[in-house]
Amino acid sequence: MDCNQIITGIYQEVKASSPDGKVADYIPELAKVDPDKFAVAITTTKGESYAIGDVDEKFSIQSISKVFLLSMAFSAQGEELWKRVGVEPSGNPFNSIVQLEYEKGKPRNPLINAGAHVLCDVLLTELEDPYEAFLDFVRKLSGNRSIEFNEKVAKSEKISGFRNASLINMMKSYGNIENHVDAVLDFYFHICSIEMTCKQLAKAFLPFASLDQPFDYADVTLTRSQIKRINAIMLTCGFYDESGEFAFEVGLPGKSGVGGGIVAIHPNQYSVATWSPRINEKGNSVFGMRALEMLTTKTENSIF
Amino acid sequence: MDCNQIITGIYQEVKASSPDGKVADYIPELAKVDPDKFAVAITTTKGESYAIGDVDEKFSIQSISKVFLLSMAFSAQGEELWKRVGVEPSGNPFNSIVQLEYEKGKPRNPLINAGAHVLCDVLLTELEDPYEAFLDFVRKLSGNRSIEFNEKVAKSEKISGFRNASLINMMKSYGNIENHVDAVLDFYFHICSIEMTCKQLAKAFLPFASLDQPFDYADVTLTRSQIKRINAIMLTCGFYDESGEFAFEVGLPGKSGVGGGIVAIHPNQYSVATWSPRINEKGNSVFGMRALEMLTTKTENSIF
Amino acid sequence: MDCNQIITGIYQEVKASSPDGKVADYIPELAKVDPDKFAVAITTTKGESYAIGDVDEKFSIQSISKVFLLSMAFSAQGEELWKRVGVEPSGNPFNSIVQLEYEKGKPRNPLINAGAHVLCDVLLTELEDPYEAFLDFVRKLSGNRSIEFNEKVAKSEKISGFRNASLINMMKSYGNIENHVDAVLDFYFHICSIEMTCKQLAKAFLPFASLDQPFDYADVTLTRSQIKRINAIMLTCGFYDESGEFAFEVGLPGKSGVGGGIVAIHPNQYSVATWSPRINEKGNSVFGMRALEMLTTKTENSIF
Amino acid sequence: MDCNQIITGIYQEVKASSPDGKVADYIPELAKVDPDKFAVAITTTKGESYAIGDVDEKFSIQSISKVFLLSMAFSAQGEELWKRVGVEPSGNPFNSIVQLEYEKGKPRNPLINAGAHVLCDVLLTELEDPYEAFLDFVRKLSGNRSIEFNEKVAKSEKISGFRNASLINMMKSYGNIENHVDAVLDFYFHICSIEMTCKQLAKAFLPFASLDQPFDYADVTLTRSQIKRINAIMLTCGFYDESGEFAFEVGLPGKSGVGGGIVAIHPNQYSVATWSPRINEKGNSVFGMRALEMLTTKTENSIF
Repeated sequence: MDCNQIITGIYQEVKASSPDGKVADYIPELAKVDPDKFAVAITTTKGESYAIGDVDEKFSIQSISKVFLLSMAFSAQGEELWKRVGVEPSGNPFNSIVQLEYEKGKPRNPLINAGAHVLCDVLLTELEDPYEAFLDFVRKLSGNRSIEFNEKVAKSEKISGFRNASLINMMKSYGNIENHVDAVLDFYFHICSIEMTCKQLAKAFLPFASLDQPFDYADVTLTRSQIKRINAIMLTCGFYDESGEFAFEVGLPGKSGVGGGIVAIHPNQYSVATWSPRINEKGNSVFGMRALEMLTTKTENSIF
Repeated sequence: MDCNQIITGIYQEVKASSPDGKVADYIPELAKVDPDKFAVAITTTKGESYAIGDVDEKFSIQSISKVFLLSMAFSAQGEELWKRVGVEPSGNPFNSIVQLEYEKGKPRNPLINAGAHVLCDVLLTELEDPYEAFLDFVRKLSGNRSIEFNEKVAKSEKISGFRNASLINMMKSYGNIENHVDAVLDFYFHICSIEMTCKQLAKAFLPFASLDQPFDYADVTLTRSQIKRINAIMLTCGFYDESGEFAFEVGLPGKSGVGGGIVAIHPNQYSVATWSPRINEKGNSVFGMRALEMLTTKTENSIF
Repeated sequence: MDCNQIITGIYQEVKASSPDGKVADYIPELAKVDPDKFAVAITTTKGESYAIGDVDEKFSIQSISKVFLLSMAFSAQGEELWKRVGVEPSGNPFNSIVQLEYEKGKPRNPLINAGAHVLCDVLLTELEDPYEAFLDFVRKLSGNRSIEFNEKVAKSEKISGFRNASLINMMKSYGNIENHVDAVLDFYFHICSIEMTCKQLAKAFLPFASLDQPFDYADVTLTRSQIKRINAIMLTCGFYDESGEFAFEVGLPGKSGVGGGIVAIHPNQYSVATWSPRINEKGNSVFGMRALEMLTTKTENSIF
Repeated sequence: MDCNQIITGIYQEVKASSPDGKVADYIPELAKVDPDKFAVAITTTKGESYAIGDVDEKFSIQSISKVFLLSMAFSAQGEELWKRVGVEPSGNPFNSIVQLEYEKGKPRNPLINAGAHVLCDVLLTELEDPYEAFLDFVRKLSGNRSIEFNEKVAKSEKISGFRNASLINMMKSYGNIENHVDAVLDFYFHICSIEMTCKQLAKAFLPFASLDQPFDYADVTLTRSQIKRINAIMLTCGFYDESGEFAFEVGLPGKSGVGGGIVAIHPNQYSVATWSPRINEKGNSVFGMRALEMLTTKTENSIF
């Protein structure tokens, strides 16, 4: 395939389509982004890259960070990790606190908020300076030293983060949080606040597609088998209550964030990142979903 | 890889492992099976086959039938089908009637009981003789004319099938069942009652792996894209509340049945069927899960 | 108090108020009633009676029948009954099947549908001719031999009663229904179909207020303590998800039906019945609730 | 009746009965109480008092305080209050956070924890010094100036109060908490920490039975109608998931606390308080329930 041509075609077709969805506005910092931004960046395991649109502009990657977090916690604890967090899709259109209570404080998977809280708690216990370690890991993955937390975003999230506080206190009541609730929330809101460009994201996720390469970045090492498992979790749990839909329509492991970013990988082939701030009611970027569906439809090349 | 050798090794290692789980006993017909039966059969897209153990013995495939059912309904209605059934994992450790009510009678996906009831209802409406059409389809897929319903099993299920009756009446109250409740249940219990051998199952699922071949059996035709979507649904929803676990451990689309059978496919590579009647508390064959996990671990070759 | 004057005042004030709510229309027989019908009838333990409005017109008493059913089952089984049905309010705005599943097929109380199904099942087991016995009991209570089932209503309910069928099959799956599901549903829909006038209802409930009189009607005998317990259940569970509201606003034990009837009793003082077909979204008669609230406010005389 | 004799008889019979249940031990201060303590105190609206057992010993009244809190908040806001908290029983055997989420942060009633949090929030907003005002009110009600918060208990509760923190953060996320989460929790744990004797409790609840007396204590005024409504709420919601059982067995409005105390009132007749630290799995004192059931059975005199 002429990848460049395909990406350009998809970009133009999607950009011309109906601008459905709306920008996340629960904190001021997210609300003020230009809704018309749109970017697609792809990097192949053979080293080729194609990018089009606002691919060099930084945006708030939000929940996409959970994959970095998962990688660090899985590297730090190995199979132990699964005693405190499951690997099943949450399948719950309403909030996960119901299941959290039903399952006695063990979150369904690492990519829902409650699961990420547990992973944050793990890193706070395991690492001396988890904030620095997290930045270090993401910087190494993306090959870019300028990646930073956005303190303003982190603070805004914390101020209005009562639902997260509710979840984490529930888990604490079941003994599944070791550190102080506020310390865990602080770290959680920081990791969600980092900003990256589409190009950086595509690069940072390439190692999840490059199964033949060793995964070793800033002391985070993962075996081939562990990478495959992270990919499996992305596929079954990466898109909130739309994970089945994404697997069905796109057919790739991936992860979305309310900032409008989406990343996906095709094992042994490529990683791809999209950004468009308008999200649907499930929290996933409308243009991003469309672009990725076209990509696997046109290339007839999902993992299924 | 020397596939034969790998399969033999796995078979022996699993057979020697701890015989956990217990035979399903909610109907007499399932309870009287020999718990020590064990079989593994694999068929590759290149035409090779390997089989070991009780591979020529018929057993009740139960929920595995839902994939055949889904294929027929998807072929018959195309995208229309998704108005009446979703594609999201159910993610519910307890029974799905809670979500069924919350989502106003639309089942989460076609591979939970409620979803299969809707598919049965679809076929009862669409086809003149759905019973015959179903047998015909499975016979063509597996290349075996002897496949039959087990009337005794179907009747036993019906007699004790109050939970299924509860689900289907709930959907009927929301208008998502067109035919008479008893007619739908009758058909449902019949399709779950068919008996096949591991060899037949492996052969019957090969077309889901053979993406380059046309799918056309007994008037059931599916496009490449439709097959991929069925595969995606198998991956995210094929193992009840253990679907994430299977994706995580095995990494292949598949489907299990309480009779102890499991099938899985690797797109463009192979289909595999296992049978061991001891099931875990989630309803999945213990030996089958083990064997398939070993298969993808040893071959380092899941879809992720 | 001049009871006659108070009742007349209330009747006129409510009749002139905003006609909120709408007639139940899920079966044709209920839908065709004149929405402007309104009646209030009161009978005191001293033998006085006051009635105003359409007090001699029969209407479908629906769920009010559950109190008769409870009386018969409690008389037949005594404390044994509470092994199969609880006495706690259901407190659930959406359908009770969730709790029914959570509590393994034991309904929360005898006045929700599932609870009444269990009571029907009890009478089918205990009595030779439960249909006749039921009519006999209600006729004796109300002193009127003309009370009958409305077969058309019973049949209509059955045809569209899928939600009831869902509930009862769920309980059957847990072993809490002994008789055939259809037999139980048939009996249930029959007892809900009886028609009575407001005057008859007031008279039929007077024995629940007359604690100093023996309760003995057509072989149904209840001790003073048992009557008090039925009254307690009416107070905590008699108005679906508005039971607390009724206790709060009216402060009397009572029971409503979707046909627009309400009965309430003040122990040692009176029984009162109202009828107005317009019901609110919780299924309770709007005018009836208003009239009863005025009654206890004006007389400053609730049980609290 | 010879009240003194009845109370003495009940006390002795219960004291000799099987000592079921166990002392609440989730905080050290509650765990170290002598499990054999038992006291019954009754005060009639005619001014008579009877007391037997450890009636002058202070204990932690815990949730009984919620009735004082409700009185203050209802007095301060009148009907406005019901916009933020309901009057329906919660009817939920497991934790109320499920319903809290389903009903968008509005608690079912003022006597569950979440409801009490909202009332605390109301007083924090309405009053200048809510802590002092609360003590003042309870001191006036009970005619005892020595009543105090137990700071050690309040602090212990706070340290382990993650479930309460979860509930209150959930409500905050829906905008139903105005003040800082920690400020509300602090106040809540303080009001639950006050200590009273059985005699003081009986006296403090007498005004809820004395419907012919004006209710005016330390600026907290309630109309007769408001008192009756508080009594109605106690009856339908005062005993967690055993409220129906208490109404059924005892038939009086009342409130229990995990410290082993129970109060109940019979309108226009008496108030009664019991204390025995062993509680059942629902959180209600075993001996207290028994004693109160005997009281209304022997006197044949519940409100029903």
